[in-house]
Amino acid sequence: MKIMILGADGYLGWPTSVDLASKNHRLLLIDNFTKKKLLAQYNRQPLIKNKSINSRIKNLDNKRVKFKNIDCTDYLKLNKAFKDFMPDAVIHYAELPSAPYSMFGYNEGWKTIENNLKSTFNLINCIKGLNPNCHVIKLGTMGEYGTPNIDIEEGWLSVLHKKRKQKFLYPRQASSLYHTSKIMDTDLLWFYVRLYGLRVTDLMQGPVYGLKANNKINNEDLYPEFTYDDIFGTVLNRFIVQAISGIPLTVYGSGKQIRGYINLADTVKCINIALKNPAKKGSLEIYNQFTEQFSVNELASKVKNALKKIDVNVKIKKIKNPRIESENHYYNASNLKMKKLGLKPSLLSDEVIIDIAMFIKNNMNKINKKIIQPKTSW
Amino acid sequence: MKIMILGADGYLGWPTSVDLASKNHRLLLIDNFTKKKLLAQYNRQPLIKNKSINSRIKNLDNKRVKFKNIDCTDYLKLNKAFKDFMPDAVIHYAELPSAPYSMFGYNEGWKTIENNLKSTFNLINCIKGLNPNCHVIKLGTMGEYGTPNIDIEEGWLSVLHKKRKQKFLYPRQASSLYHTSKIMDTDLLWFYVRLYGLRVTDLMQGPVYGLKANNKINNEDLYPEFTYDDIFGTVLNRFIVQAISGIPLTVYGSGKQIRGYINLADTVKCINIALKNPAKKGSLEIYNQFTEQFSVNELASKVKNALKKIDVNVKIKKIKNPRIESENHYYNASNLKMKKLGLKPSLLSDEVIIDIAMFIKNNMNKINKKIIQPKTSW
Repeated sequence: MKIMILGADGYLGWPTSVDLASKNHRLLLIDNFTKKKLLAQYNRQPLIKNKSINSRIKNLDNKRVKFKNIDCTDYLKLNKAFKDFMPDAVIHYAELPSAPYSMFGYNEGWKTIENNLKSTFNLINCIKGLNPNCHVIKLGTMGEYGTPNIDIEEGWLSVLHKKRKQKFLYPRQASSLYHTSKIMDTDLLWFYVRLYGLRVTDLMQGPVYGLKANNKINNEDLYPEFTYDDIFGTVLNRFIVQAISGIPLTVYGSGKQIRGYINLADTVKCINIALKNPAKKGSLEIYNQFTEQFSVNELASKVKNALKKIDVNVKIKKIKNPRIESENHYYNASNLKMKKLGLKPSLLSDEVIIDIAMFIKNNMNKINKKIIQPKTSW
Repeated sequence: MKIMILGADGYLGWPTSVDLASKNHRLLLIDNFTKKKLLAQYNRQPLIKNKSINSRIKNLDNKRVKFKNIDCTDYLKLNKAFKDFMPDAVIHYAELPSAPYSMFGYNEGWKTIENNLKSTFNLINCIKGLNPNCHVIKLGTMGEYGTPNIDIEEGWLSVLHKKRKQKFLYPRQASSLYHTSKIMDTDLLWFYVRLYGLRVTDLMQGPVYGLKANNKINNEDLYPEFTYDDIFGTVLNRFIVQAISGIPLTVYGSGKQIRGYINLADTVKCINIALKNPAKKGSLEIYNQFTEQFSVNELASKVKNALKKIDVNVKIKKIKNPRIESENHYYNASNLKMKKLGLKPSLLSDEVIIDIAMFIKNNMNKINKKIIQPKTSW
């Protein structure tokens, strides 16, 4: 298959690229290193720094992987790349991925909305104009739903109201500008799918943890850059870095906030499943892409208990929640669709936690303890 | 009251300004004439051209009305104007208002999304930073809801799902990029209201017709620019121009599309009601702002029957629908909230149609028949 990956240098983009390359697809990787630049600008260096993407690509066992440095908010350049390559599918990760970044200030908030919405708008216009049959796989977030008091279904909600029925996009209400930008993406995708019969898969993903596209990978060239800071690090990765550094795990607020989590290796499996099961023409296929629900307290306990096995003594400390979010809420989200299509999840076992911890331990001289505590509040 | 009106030179903005000036409020009018520039650029001249806004303001019977030429997408300038004036309420009309414009091409589509979302983002950031108690009255559109198969409630929908309850923003699905940009505005406003306790009134308005802020007005200086073209003209105004020009009224498709309509004079009454009944802190108050539902066929018949009384023989012609939209659909929208607060609607009587027709007749030498037929299709 000819696949274009937007945001191919990112935390999800690079492992996805590595995995799809191993399956012998023809790939065009696109990135403009916005995230690397932001990490430098905000002084949030990742634990390991990747070699250049071109040198990493050279070491892949697939000579049909190319890279282009393109800003996806530049329509003419994206359109030309699309036209030259004419992909069968596009995986769209080219978005600013951080809630705290989006809440940092006015500029970061608008930059998040503009970048995310414009990259989506541009991609969908390329497809509409050049190949409406091309399948878009777009990364959304479970955070679009917020924490409603009813079950979170997979993308859609059938409503019975005054004896009449309507199936709607599941109503969304998020708790950061980043998550709100993803809601706007969904508004836009649903509009184009409905009007022009495009084929879009929107993956509502929960917070990700881990390093590896699959368990067989041990070459650090194939890992994504691993961030653990307050802006770009995801919670479980940050907890394990805190544990290895001897810093208490910082639980925000009561720690009762529940979310659906997913292993990076499962993200990659889900992308493969989505590629094999493309959305039909005129259909917006939505999956809730997580494998297990935990409260933040449960997550912290899991880290504590797992690392006891390798003699790391983990402390947990509740700190004032820097975010405005519900701490006592109902949460029951469906995630059956990916399983029905064959997803065998890599659950959050002690072994998985220890594996990530060992990688961090091997790089612990590089940990910058000053960038872990939350500095953005809202 | 100190009131800031964004988009004060527009079809709704100018009559609102005229009316609020007559009630002796202190007003800061803001506009950068984007719509006037677009009308010139796309060769869609209005029927009458307004004098300069400063000269029109001089003739108002209120010396506390000021005007500033500011682009609301320029945050620093908007913020400074807000800080200098410190309004009690802001009426936000500073948006590109046209579905056909937004569907004209890539540039128009993105410009609509960017302009509308950024002006809202900027305003809400001014308020959050400078006076969270300030009441925002924002113009939305009934088009945000689309044409669902259940009743359209006023902004919110209570859902009972698997024995649990949740009140959601009424799910929205629009049929143009313009309308979708308004959905995104709503996403954004609801986010800020929920997180920061702002006070926002969002008016889901149906297509507007007419010229006058109220029936006593006969001075053309107090009229807004009246457009009747395929891009910026609203349907009823366009029909009456066609009737007076001896052109058949162009009904798009089957004409069975039903919408909720409103007289411009009622828009102004609703703004006054919203000002007197500000949204509470942390509340997004949503009104469905229309007074009567008609199909396009009914609207055309009403024009035909009314103008028979002044011996105008009206022809009606169905043309291929240039838009992708449902033509056979359920439509039953609630509009009780404004009535409960005292709205006495000016309904679409023969007299109202004839009054608009007489104005057009007096200016019929200025009608450009070439700009009426739809030239944008999607």
